[in-house]
Amino acid sequence: SATPQSRSNEVENDVLEKCRTFMSAPVTDVGTLQKNKEDIKSKMELLIMETQAEVCRALAEVDGSAFKVDRWHRKEGGGGISCVLQDGNVFEKAGVNVSVVSGYLSEEAAQQMRSRGKPLKGKDGKLPFCAMGVSSVIHPKNPHIPTIHFNYRYFEIEEEDGTKLWWFGGGTDLTPTYLDKADAAHFHKTLKDACDQHNPKLYPDFKKWCDKYFFIKHRGERRGIGGIFFDDLESPSKAEVFEFVKSCAKAVVPCYIPIVKKHVNDSFTSEEKHWQQLRRGRYVEFNLIYDRGTKFGLATPGSRIESILMSLPLTARWEYMHEPHKGTKEAEILDILRNPKDWV
Amino acid sequence: SATPQSRSNEVENDVLEKCRTFMSAPVTDVGTLQKNKEDIKSKMELLIMETQAEVCRALAEVDGSAFKVDRWHRKEGGGGISCVLQDGNVFEKAGVNVSVVSGYLSEEAAQQMRSRGKPLKGKDGKLPFCAMGVSSVIHPKNPHIPTIHFNYRYFEIEEEDGTKLWWFGGGTDLTPTYLDKADAAHFHKTLKDACDQHNPKLYPDFKKWCDKYFFIKHRGERRGIGGIFFDDLESPSKAEVFEFVKSCAKAVVPCYIPIVKKHVNDSFTSEEKHWQQLRRGRYVEFNLIYDRGTKFGLATPGSRIESILMSLPLTARWEYMHEPHKGTKEAEILDILRNPKDWV
Repeated sequence: SATPQSRSNEVENDVLEKCRTFMSAPVTDVGTLQKNKEDIKSKMELLIMETQAEVCRALAEVDGSAFKVDRWHRKEGGGGISCVLQDGNVFEKAGVNVSVVSGYLSEEAAQQMRSRGKPLKGKDGKLPFCAMGVSSVIHPKNPHIPTIHFNYRYFEIEEEDGTKLWWFGGGTDLTPTYLDKADAAHFHKTLKDACDQHNPKLYPDFKKWCDKYFFIKHRGERRGIGGIFFDDLESPSKAEVFEFVKSCAKAVVPCYIPIVKKHVNDSFTSEEKHWQQLRRGRYVEFNLIYDRGTKFGLATPGSRIESILMSLPLTARWEYMHEPHKGTKEAEILDILRNPKDWV
Repeated sequence: SATPQSRSNEVENDVLEKCRTFMSAPVTDVGTLQKNKEDIKSKMELLIMETQAEVCRALAEVDGSAFKVDRWHRKEGGGGISCVLQDGNVFEKAGVNVSVVSGYLSEEAAQQMRSRGKPLKGKDGKLPFCAMGVSSVIHPKNPHIPTIHFNYRYFEIEEEDGTKLWWFGGGTDLTPTYLDKADAAHFHKTLKDACDQHNPKLYPDFKKWCDKYFFIKHRGERRGIGGIFFDDLESPSKAEVFEFVKSCAKAVVPCYIPIVKKHVNDSFTSEEKHWQQLRRGRYVEFNLIYDRGTKFGLATPGSRIESILMSLPLTARWEYMHEPHKGTKEAEILDILRNPKDWV
C-alpha cells in the first residue's frame, strides 16, 4: 500500500504528465498548479490547456500541417499561448488561444465583463481580477465544411469588502456556408448530450441564448446555426459548474471533427466559394461590431491584438445588394439564419 | 431688360437645369427646392447632388463602366440615392451615396450625432432633426491607386424651447497601399488650397483632426495618409461655412482623379495585391469598430444598411502576425501610418 508521501508524488506526477501533452507549458508554473491543485483556478487552467491540445491535435491530423505555437506575456499580469494553423490543406485559418490573465480592472471594465448584475464596487475604484479561457475559431477552405467557434472561460473579481465574485461563461456554435441538416443535428445532439449529463434544462436555455447572442442586428440574421452560449454562470456550485464546462469542452472534438472528415473531400464550385466569402464578410461584421469578447479584448490595456483578431477569416468579401435567388441552396441557409430552428 | 417675372423664371430654370445633370432627381421635390432656394437646406441638397454627379461622371469616364443608381425611401422620413460601380475595369468598388433624412431623434441619438457640446433637450425626449450629406468610398483594383473617402454633411436639430442647432461636418482623406510622395503632396495641397480660400487656419487644424480621427487604436496605425476632417462646424456663419464646404466638395475631383489617371496603367505584382488586401482588412477594422458615421448609421432605425456598408471593400484579408520586413515599401507606408507627417 502507498505511503502518504508516495501518493502525493503520484498526484504531482499526474499534473506534470498532463502538462507534457500540452502545446506549451501552462501560463502558471507547474509547481504552483500542483500546490493549488484543488483550487478551481488550477483545474480550469489545466482544462483549457488540455482542450487546446486535444483540438489542435485533431485539426492538425486532419490538415496534415502543424500549428504555430506562440507564448506571450502580458506585462500587467499573466499571458497566453496562441496556436495558429494558417493557409493549411484543409483549414484557411484555425486559431486556438489560451489566456490566463490577472491584475486590476476599473469598475467600468469589470461591469462590462458581466452581462448582468449589480454594479461592482472596488477599492479606490479598482478590482483585482483573474480571467482565463480557451477561445477558438476554425475557418476551413472547403465551403462544405462549416466554421466552428468555441470559448470556455472563468472569471474571479474581488470587491472592496473582500467579496469574491466568480462565474463561468462559454459556448460552442457552428457557422455553415450551406445547410447540411444531418450535420446540424449531429452538432446540436452532441452538445445536448454533454449538457443533459448535468441538467436537462441547460441545453434548451443555452441553445436559445446562443441564437440570441450571435445575432447580426443590422442584417436581421444570426451568424450561424447556433449551438450553446452561456455567461455569468454561478450555480448550483463552483464544482458543479466546472464539471459542466468540462463536459462542454470535451464535446468540441466529437461535435466538429466528424463533420470535417465527412466533407473534407467534397468537390465545390467557384460559385460555392464565392458564397462562402460573402458569409465570411458577415462573420467579420459580427465579430467586429457585436462580439463582447472582441470588444472587451480590444479595449483591455495590454491585450494581445493578434490573438483577439485571429478569429477573423483569412479572406472575406462584401458585395453591394447581394441577395440569393429563391429556391437556391444559398437562400435555404439564409432562411435558417433569419428564422432559427430546433435541431434536436 | 428682363421683367421681375422672367427673372424668376430664369432662376427656376436654373434649378431645374441643374437637376437634369444629377444621377437621379433630388430627394426633395424640385418645386420645394425652387421655392426655398435661399434656404441652406436647399442649397446643401443641390450641392451634394451635384458633387455626387461630378464624382460619378469622372469615375465612370476613367473606368469605362456605368454606375448603378438606386433611389431609396426611408419610411420615417426622407431617402437617398446610392450610386455604385462594382467590379469595374479600374474600380473594385466605388460608392457615392446621397441621403436626405428627417424625423425625430431620441436625446441619446441626437447627442451621438455631435462630437462635443452640451446635452440636448427635446420635447418629451424627442428632437425634430434633418440630416443630409454625400458620402463616398472608392476602392480601386490596382494597388498603386489609393482608396479615397469623402463625406460632406449638414445637420439641423430643434430643441424643446425652439432653439435650432445646425452644423456642418465633413472631410476627404486618402488611403494608399503604397506611399507615393508626389501623390500625397498633390492631395494635401489641393485640399489646403480649397481651405485657404476661406481661412488659413482651417487646413492645419482639420489636417490634424483627420490624423486623430482615422486612428485604428488597437493597431496604433492611422487608416491612411489623412487629408482633412471636421465636425460640429458652426462658425463664422451658416453662409460662410456652406461656402467652405462647397469649396471642399468641389476639390474632390481635382484631388483624386489626377492620381487615378497617373497610376491606372501601372503594372503590379501578386505580392503588391496581397499587401493591398491586408490593408483592406485594416480599412474594414476602422469602419466597423471606430467610424462614427457607420456606428450611427447601423444604430439608426430605418437606415439603409447596404448604403452604409457600401464603404467596405469588395475583398479583404487578415493574416496572423503579418509584419513587413524592414526596408521594404510595405514597411515604408506602415511607418507613415504609425507616424503621420506633414505633406505641404
